[in-house]
Amino acid sequence: MKRAHLLVVGLYLLSSCRAEEGLNFPTYDGKDRVVSLTERNFKQILKKYDLLCLYYHEPVSSDKVAQKQFQLKEIVLELVAQVLEHKDIGFVMVDAKKEAKLAKKLGFDEEGSLYVLKGDRTIEFDGEFAADVLVEFLLDLIEDPVEILNSKLEVQAFERIEDQIKLIGFFKSEDSEYYKAFEEAAEQFQPYIKFFATFDKGVAKKLSLKMNEVDFYEPFMDEPVAIPDKPYTEEELVEFVKEHQRPTLRRLRPEDMFETWEDDLNGIHIVAFAERNDPDGYEFLEILKHVARDNTNNPELSIVWIDPDDFPLLITYWEKTFKIDLFKPQIGVVNVTDADSVWMEIPDDDDLPTAEELEDWIEDVLSGKISTEDDDDGEEDDEDDDDDDDDDGNNSEEEENGDSDEDEE
Amino acid sequence: MKRAHLLVVGLYLLSSCRAEEGLNFPTYDGKDRVVSLTERNFKQILKKYDLLCLYYHEPVSSDKVAQKQFQLKEIVLELVAQVLEHKDIGFVMVDAKKEAKLAKKLGFDEEGSLYVLKGDRTIEFDGEFAADVLVEFLLDLIEDPVEILNSKLEVQAFERIEDQIKLIGFFKSEDSEYYKAFEEAAEQFQPYIKFFATFDKGVAKKLSLKMNEVDFYEPFMDEPVAIPDKPYTEEELVEFVKEHQRPTLRRLRPEDMFETWEDDLNGIHIVAFAERNDPDGYEFLEILKHVARDNTNNPELSIVWIDPDDFPLLITYWEKTFKIDLFKPQIGVVNVTDADSVWMEIPDDDDLPTAEELEDWIEDVLSGKISTEDDDDGEEDDEDDDDDDDDDGNNSEEEENGDSDEDEE
Repeated sequence: MKRAHLLVVGLYLLSSCRAEEGLNFPTYDGKDRVVSLTERNFKQILKKYDLLCLYYHEPVSSDKVAQKQFQLKEIVLELVAQVLEHKDIGFVMVDAKKEAKLAKKLGFDEEGSLYVLKGDRTIEFDGEFAADVLVEFLLDLIEDPVEILNSKLEVQAFERIEDQIKLIGFFKSEDSEYYKAFEEAAEQFQPYIKFFATFDKGVAKKLSLKMNEVDFYEPFMDEPVAIPDKPYTEEELVEFVKEHQRPTLRRLRPEDMFETWEDDLNGIHIVAFAERNDPDGYEFLEILKHVARDNTNNPELSIVWIDPDDFPLLITYWEKTFKIDLFKPQIGVVNVTDADSVWMEIPDDDDLPTAEELEDWIEDVLSGKISTEDDDDGEEDDEDDDDDDDDDGNNSEEEENGDSDEDEE
Repeated sequence: MKRAHLLVVGLYLLSSCRAEEGLNFPTYDGKDRVVSLTERNFKQILKKYDLLCLYYHEPVSSDKVAQKQFQLKEIVLELVAQVLEHKDIGFVMVDAKKEAKLAKKLGFDEEGSLYVLKGDRTIEFDGEFAADVLVEFLLDLIEDPVEILNSKLEVQAFERIEDQIKLIGFFKSEDSEYYKAFEEAAEQFQPYIKFFATFDKGVAKKLSLKMNEVDFYEPFMDEPVAIPDKPYTEEELVEFVKEHQRPTLRRLRPEDMFETWEDDLNGIHIVAFAERNDPDGYEFLEILKHVARDNTNNPELSIVWIDPDDFPLLITYWEKTFKIDLFKPQIGVVNVTDADSVWMEIPDDDDLPTAEELEDWIEDVLSGKISTEDDDDGEEDDEDDDDDDDDDGNNSEEEENGDSDEDEE
């Protein structure tokens, strides 16, 4: 890792010349903390840490660009290792060629992936490879897998979480065998899915939970589903969650964005952009939630909601790739193989589509009436598309040319 | 900028080897986009862009560490310039020594600062020097300075914003002279303070706004303050906001964290850590809000709330510097000169202090009864501190040694 050091010495630097203290971003100190894993040192290293973070990489090639990309990942890992130095987490690199046997033993199959070993569990990190995202991911992994609710205010906090899957169970005490099964199940999904529990009758009553019952909350749905046939074994809980893991409306999150993106339906995603902290974005998200609630039983529908605020560096890339303006809400269909896309025409952010209009549009997407291939002939000449566009409310390449029908006539 | 290129070629890289398209983080392409500003090219460059982003730096020294820090800032700026290439924003460097005359003319005084020129306004960026934070800051600056509310759902979105200052005005139309004054005032605070307006009677009624009235909302307060003596000139609005800019409870935000930190009261900050998405953190924040509402008229009180989730890379730095555990809520006093600190003893996150206990503690801080200097003698030997600690509920260096009274007896 020698070369890498000189390059960065602190990407997250820069507050050193101030008179105040208290907000000093860490700068990489140049120490080697990430080591190469071999069959020889494997057992010893594994024993040493609660958590082992492994970067499984292809052999470093002679290609300069590839080398630089590799160095950058190394630096990100070194900085993360430094920041988490006292948290009992080990960081290693596994060379896919040199350590093929070890990798096979560990079940690693995708080069360029980051895995975490915790006890006998292997967790794949499939999110943004950035120091802050990784640090948060690892800190979440060393917390307790189940969060206990004790008070009314904590129930309020629980109820406020609407943009991700959550489960809550009511048990007699921490010693209950059913709570233990729940805890074991929670570990299988940590840190991606949040598990809560209560031992308090008042809290259970507020959440309409019976003893040993576990409720499953799909994101953005008002009512939970009680998992049937309580009490449950760990396996039953795990199976239920796996079956219900793809919600009707899901938020793209930095910590598992690539996993979500890979989980497409028939090669496409219905993608909605809405900035939650913006009035128009909030309004559009409310309409989306309404549509999701109406269609929660349709297994063919899973809308990916992206809040541009979560991905500042991708905003202009998306605007260019999808030919849309992200200062206002958007919904479209994206082909995940080539990022070809078609977007619903929203002429004005003060005139957002109604839930009904959105449902009609989604129906047209699911039936194939609206498809990313529609406009591929007419890319140079939109006038030919008029009949299609008017029917479907479609708007694909038009924005780029700035000559939509409204403007011209 | 030649040297810098080779170093990074993409910090935010790494999705290039995937089969899917649609989530490609930008990688720095090596092109020079950030230019050096001189008196000669100044006017021409200024004319060329809507927004000009200037990094005012001390002369690059021969010191290697300083050079590297400078290069890293350059790379961050180059990446930001690349990402925002089509947004009509210019990026320049101003050498404090070579261009001393120009810098003086521009009113730059703090080396290492980033300034943005927009029209005849100069905005200082005093936040985290990271590409994503900067991109979001600049995108916010090119949006309209006033957000218009048109519907009930948009009012809901407006009401949900509680953690920052917001203003809203009711005007006849966009052509109203009073609206124009409001808009001009908004530009003075963009993007740090959000200004909203409505031209809709229904919206105004819902918010209890009279014609030409502007309401000022302090963060976390239920009720706004109507700015007196409507209608207002731009200057009156600006003056009012400046006078009320320091709230009783404020969130530390990446985009202006250093500015907030510099705005200490008598050299100290009362700092509260609470993770909003965690039940304990949420509960603690609710208690803090209660305290803030009770004490909103005390100009001596301004609590800085930090959500650790907003600053993953600082979590372990804070834990080490302040000797606290950030998996649970904390409140303390921090001396901003040396980061010396004293923290309230919260034995268990299931037993958070009540609002009354918190108010007593804060009173002791404001009266000087609790101070960061209290424990400085006893740093090696906490047993001597017993009498103080019991009275004040203080907990400073104890955690580090792991021998608080509770544990021992």
